[in-house]
Amino acid sequence: MGEFSFIQWIRKRRKRQKRRKDVILGIGDDCAAINVSSDRMCLITTDMLVDGTHFDLKKCSVQDVGRKAIACSISDVAAMGCQATVAVVSICFPNHTTERFAKELYKGIWGIADKYDIGIVGGDIISGDSPLCINVTMLGRDAGLKPIRRSGARVGDMILVTGTLGGSLLGKHLHFEPRIKEGLVLNKNFSVHAMIDISDGLTADLNHILEESRVGAILYEDQIPVSEAAVKMAEKSENTPLYHALSDGEDYELLLTLCIGEVIKGSGIQMKFSGGKIRRLRPRGYEHLKS
Amino acid sequence: MGEFSFIQWIRKRRKRQKRRKDVILGIGDDCAAINVSSDRMCLITTDMLVDGTHFDLKKCSVQDVGRKAIACSISDVAAMGCQATVAVVSICFPNHTTERFAKELYKGIWGIADKYDIGIVGGDIISGDSPLCINVTMLGRDAGLKPIRRSGARVGDMILVTGTLGGSLLGKHLHFEPRIKEGLVLNKNFSVHAMIDISDGLTADLNHILEESRVGAILYEDQIPVSEAAVKMAEKSENTPLYHALSDGEDYELLLTLCIGEVIKGSGIQMKFSGGKIRRLRPRGYEHLKS
Repeated sequence: MGEFSFIQWIRKRRKRQKRRKDVILGIGDDCAAINVSSDRMCLITTDMLVDGTHFDLKKCSVQDVGRKAIACSISDVAAMGCQATVAVVSICFPNHTTERFAKELYKGIWGIADKYDIGIVGGDIISGDSPLCINVTMLGRDAGLKPIRRSGARVGDMILVTGTLGGSLLGKHLHFEPRIKEGLVLNKNFSVHAMIDISDGLTADLNHILEESRVGAILYEDQIPVSEAAVKMAEKSENTPLYHALSDGEDYELLLTLCIGEVIKGSGIQMKFSGGKIRRLRPRGYEHLKS
Repeated sequence: MGEFSFIQWIRKRRKRQKRRKDVILGIGDDCAAINVSSDRMCLITTDMLVDGTHFDLKKCSVQDVGRKAIACSISDVAAMGCQATVAVVSICFPNHTTERFAKELYKGIWGIADKYDIGIVGGDIISGDSPLCINVTMLGRDAGLKPIRRSGARVGDMILVTGTLGGSLLGKHLHFEPRIKEGLVLNKNFSVHAMIDISDGLTADLNHILEESRVGAILYEDQIPVSEAAVKMAEKSENTPLYHALSDGEDYELLLTLCIGEVIKGSGIQMKFSGGKIRRLRPRGYEHLKS
């Protein structure tokens, strides 16, 4: 079963359904957004991690797992340019889990929750004949800002990323800092057109933006911020550092597109009007506007 | 590891933490409640179900599983006397799951979600070397009412339940109707002091209310609503129908305590004032109040 094709099926199926009026943003972005009062919305995102797929308890501590589960969800709220607030955490422990192991997991959860001021307000603890499985649902608030969707990229936008990419398996996939501050600053100070966090990989996640926005993109080889970890990975793999920067997932950097204009050859400022016409603008400062 | 003792440890640990101002109700009730604007709150609850523990795919359809996952979470909101609104659903499919199986699961989810007007606004789909595991996080709104907690039971309250109990394993645990309407009607029209949904069993869940409210209870043997399923179960088990009504879980009926007075021997109306004094009241209708 292909995950993406199945999600497409879900989205199509749901579009035919009656839609609740309070749902501003449904399936298909980093978070959904719900109207909770006339001027407030509530963001919601959920992420499930299972041992053997998203982490490997043979290679990392259980505290790392708790940290990662919360950090991934914070990153989803960051990708909307909003503020993460509270979370609920469900855990399926393998049968015969020790209390010590369980407490270590919570240390990881609480450590990062406290750091980012996330309230852990509830959860569910079960056990089963199953590997460790953890689900985090995170709520966020708009903080007076408009959530940034994946679907707003426009032709002419520049593509930006908040950090270096590639080789996260060497450690960053567990210890990354979710870009919540960066997301808020970007949302507050720039008119970001589209944003996503890089969990699947630069090209895969950029493609999510492009498909949702119905546009294409050109990447500049010499501008891709290749991480040191990508270089290290390339020493052992048969791929180039650039390949790792483009393809590796779980860097949890923010990938965004925005543009209020572009630098061109020549001199002076021109304005391209919505209709397509281009005219020269005279530079005016505050002083001039007064007169 | 004992689930309850571990949850106690979590609650104790969290009480020492800085508490967010917007968290009205944290860990320890059927839902948490978050202030989302000056006059609105958002309820949140999360439930995880795993094959082999909460259901058995050898004995039920996968559509039943989807239905149950959503219904359990609606029931948690019902237990607060509030309105369920939207949900996010995470699913860990066992490796090599067929698309047909996955679609059947969603049919179960959507069937009941549509029936109760719940928007499924997002989710996460993963796979692993794991039994089927499903997590639902449900949001609710207060609908202008105060959420009913577990901790409000008072000495003198009557104990009530919305339906018959016991033997849910014979089918009700999959096909129960969450008591969302009943919860809202009760909250709107009565001053319910404490409420919970019966997932662990009548005595176990009543005990949750009692511990949170620091009171005791007396149950009347001849008043316990024993279900037909409990009688059937008793034919095969070594226990009485009453035992099943008291101990079986997953009936998802609402258990509540309320009382504005009690019927006594004699005649007339007396008022017991908060201070403890008792005085006779003269019955007055609207007419009398006018004069």
